[in-house]
This record gives sequence, structure tokens and C-alpha cells, in this order.
Amino acid sequence: MEKNILLTIEYDGSVFHGWQRQPEALTVQGMLEEALSTVCGKPVEINGTSRTDAGVHAYGQRASFKGDFGIPTERIAYAVNNALLSDKWGEAAGAVRVLKAENVSSDFHARFDSKGKTYVYKIYNMPEMDVFRRNYCYHIPDELDIEAMRKAAKLIEGTHDFKCFEAAGGQERETTVRTISGITVERGNRTGSGAERAGDGSGVERAEGGRGEDGYVNIRVNGDGFLYNMVRIITGTLAEVGLGKRSPEEMTEIIEGKDRTKAGHTAPPQGLYLEQIYY
Amino acid sequence: MEKNILLTIEYDGSVFHGWQRQPEALTVQGMLEEALSTVCGKPVEINGTSRTDAGVHAYGQRASFKGDFGIPTERIAYAVNNALLSDKWGEAAGAVRVLKAENVSSDFHARFDSKGKTYVYKIYNMPEMDVFRRNYCYHIPDELDIEAMRKAAKLIEGTHDFKCFEAAGGQERETTVRTISGITVERGNRTGSGAERAGDGSGVERAEGGRGEDGYVNIRVNGDGFLYNMVRIITGTLAEVGLGKRSPEEMTEIIEGKDRTKAGHTAPPQGLYLEQIYY
Repeated sequence: MEKNILLTIEYDGSVFHGWQRQPEALTVQGMLEEALSTVCGKPVEINGTSRTDAGVHAYGQRASFKGDFGIPTERIAYAVNNALLSDKWGEAAGAVRVLKAENVSSDFHARFDSKGKTYVYKIYNMPEMDVFRRNYCYHIPDELDIEAMRKAAKLIEGTHDFKCFEAAGGQERETTVRTISGITVERGNRTGSGAERAGDGSGVERAEGGRGEDGYVNIRVNGDGFLYNMVRIITGTLAEVGLGKRSPEEMTEIIEGKDRTKAGHTAPPQGLYLEQIYY
Repeated sequence: MEKNILLTIEYDGSVFHGWQRQPEALTVQGMLEEALSTVCGKPVEINGTSRTDAGVHAYGQRASFKGDFGIPTERIAYAVNNALLSDKWGEAAGAVRVLKAENVSSDFHARFDSKGKTYVYKIYNMPEMDVFRRNYCYHIPDELDIEAMRKAAKLIEGTHDFKCFEAAGGQERETTVRTISGITVERGNRTGSGAERAGDGSGVERAEGGRGEDGYVNIRVNGDGFLYNMVRIITGTLAEVGLGKRSPEEMTEIIEGKDRTKAGHTAPPQGLYLEQIYY
């Protein structure tokens, strides 16, 4: 009997040329499809919810695929994760992991049925960078004004035409109107947690080696859908507010102007994490 | 005038074929020498203190080199770090960083004058692994008995013939006698800190994505010198004690037996960090 299977997927984007399958480059979709095809015993093609760019990470990407497979759905995660650890993937071995595989109704579609998503963008806001963080955050050495960033973020929330925050080159879309239901800006740690939740004990500095885990400014954006590079442009614009290069009040003008060139820079991909998708 | 310059170096070993220069493979020494040669305006060869293996990391590697250079020593770190960030290094861009460059006396040698070193080995001791830790720790899902590991570690401390903890294939050495001045085994966090120092607020779990930073068992080994793979074999042996596969008391017998096959397995390279070198 044909099943429709929904996967929840985690990946380290630093070793991939993004989500979407490409003939000559290693992508998350390509690697997953190859491993799933082995495990399921026949060619598998998956529909991912978000086509994340090269360097972007995921804690909770989703993808679905249909087929009549010998393997029970509840064994897929274990089997495919073993296949994903194979040495044949080189440095990408273990860089993707299926957290969950579940049966869903036959008309379910991982992308079209998505009701919303949360992204978290991690800025490392300490004077000195280190080698271990280079693929996992955006380093801004000068101290950010969190209150100013929060004021600006408030002006982004709501339903607006967000053309100002859209990069060229994305997928076709009917409208550039989106609803951002919430943006939080919190000092926190490397896990993406806010300081309030994470306590303050984790930032111990030692004289040599091994800096603490605090020092992050985590921007969490929740919305019904996102335009191409939208979270990265919002982050770049909020960072400019945090650095005093723009006032929070400018945000309204930027949105109303519907002009990408009026917004801030595009923050780099390695700070962005697709955290959760809602159905 | 010829100067003798000592570097303190940090690197992410996951993208390198180890420290030592190789003609066809990217190594830390090779990349550093190329960047230093550019910055210093003439060919530079460096003497590293430890020839770390592929996958092993460093917070405080040291290396020295001599020459008569136009660039003041205090500007070398900044200049070479810029060169190390170049896109030409691909995924290794920014994976090595010079923390400090200082003038030392002309007879100083980074390796021969070393009086001791500290390594830290990071075990991630939680049931579930995630993709972001795969190059930076050793995952042991079953709970380790820390007290048993500490008892075993105590028996390793002191001056002994450590032939039992030496892998084949290392550099020539006059003796296999070494002094281990201390081994600590602590539950702690990802930075290598013990829980006592790091507080306990950092391990907040969220329902989806972004696990906490606790859950580590960090083994810190301090000694005057180390045989090939010694810390990794000590770690593998202590891990077997922690899992109840060996008793702590066996340690004395293992050391006295001077037989590698009586000790435990070699823990994988990605959990090992060269933390500090003493002169």
C-alpha cells in the first residue's frame, strides 16, 4: 500500500550546496534521497518544505515522499541515519540526520500545507571570534543595542508587503505580502536560547582555550511564510539598527518603500537556522 | 636583524589532514606557512610543538620560526589571520587563527623547550547525538560512571613507563617513561569547562532544535610529554571503566604490563583538543 511519509530533518549546512538537488554538487536533498533510496529499496524523491541556501542549517526541516516500501515507517529514521553515516559521504558523513519519520494522510504536502515557520539567526556579539564558530554564526564584534533592535523588530511584526526584504533570485510567488507573527531579539547562548531561559552560568572564560557559550544575540522570527533571503535581510537591517547606523523608526519607512535597496545588508548564511515548521 | 618568533595557534582540526606539512594534502602547518610567507615576504618554515593528527583540534598549539622580516612581530597575528581568511582556502578559510606572535630569545625552540602540555578530551555523554557536534566530540550514549573513571585516572597519575598507552607509528623517542601530573574527569559543557565552574544553567532543552550545552564528560590530562595517541588511548580505557567493562583497579596492571593490547580502545581524534603548552 502506498504510504505518504513525513520526515523531520536536522542538518549542518556548512558542508552542503544548499537543500535543493543538483547534478554535480552535494546537497541535503541529494544525499537524503540517495540514502532513502537504499533504505527503501527503490528510487525516492522528496519534497522539502524550505529550499535553504548553501551554509544555512536546520533543526527541523520537513520533507515528504510517497511510495510502497518494504520497510516499516518507524524503522526508517534509524536505517537512513546509518546510511547517512557512511564514509562514502566524506566530510558530509553524519551532517544530515532524520529525527523522525511518520505516516501522514495521502493528501498531505510538506510545503503547501505548512502554516508557518520559525527561523533563528545567531549573531556572535563578542570582540574576538574563534575558529570553532566560523560556520555557525555571524560575528559582529561591536556591541549591539538590543533595545533598539527590539523596537525596530516590533515595527516589522504584522501583515505587510515585505518586498523591501526580498532578494532577487527566489522562487515565483503570487504576492510579497506576508505575516510576521513575532520577532524576538535576546542575548543568549550558542544553542539559540535566550539568557533568561539559559541562565548565566555558561559564559565562563578561561585564560587559554575554550571560551564560554554566551555572547550570542539570537533573533527568532516566526511567520506564515518567507520571501527569498527575508530573514537574512531582516537580520542585516536589525544589526545596522543595533550598531546605531539606523534608527528603529526607519523600519516603517523601509517597509512602506517596498524597495530592497532601502533595507540593510544581507546577513551571511551561516548564522541562519530553520528551527521549526508548523502544520 | 634575525628574530625568533613564537606563535600561539588555534585550529579546527576537522578540515585538515593533521598538523604536519604534506605535499598533496591540506595541513595546518602547510596553510600557516603559506600565509606567513606571504605576510613576511619570504619563505617561512615553522617548528610546531605537537604534530597533532587529522581531526584533532587546538586551542593553544605553539610554533616558532626565525628570520629577518620587514613586518613588526606585533602585527603578524593580524596580518596572517587576514591571509588565513582568504576564499582561496575554501572550507578551511578561517579554520586556523594565530592568537599571539611574540619575540623570544634566539635559542628558544617551541618543541624542545616545552616543559609540559594539557590536552582536553571531550566525550558527549547523552543518549542522542546531533549533527553539529559530530566533528567536535566522541559520542558515548550510555551513562558513564564518573567516580570509577576518577579512581582509574588516579592510578595513571605519576611517573611511569607508559608503553601500554602508545600506538605504533609515532616519532622516535628515547624512552616511554612519562610523568602525568594530573588527570581530571568532570561533567561539564561543550567549552571543556567542568560543571562546577560553568554553572548549571546552560543545559536548557527545547522541544524542537537546539539542545543544551551540557552533557559532556571532559577529561583533562596534564603531563610533561605524551607518546603517540596516548591521550586517546587513556580516554578509551577510562571510557571502558566508565561503562563498567573494566574495573578501575585494572589500571595498575595495564600500566605494569607495558602491553598496548591490554589497554582500551583508541578514542577517535575529533574529541581531542591540545589546550595549552608550558615553557
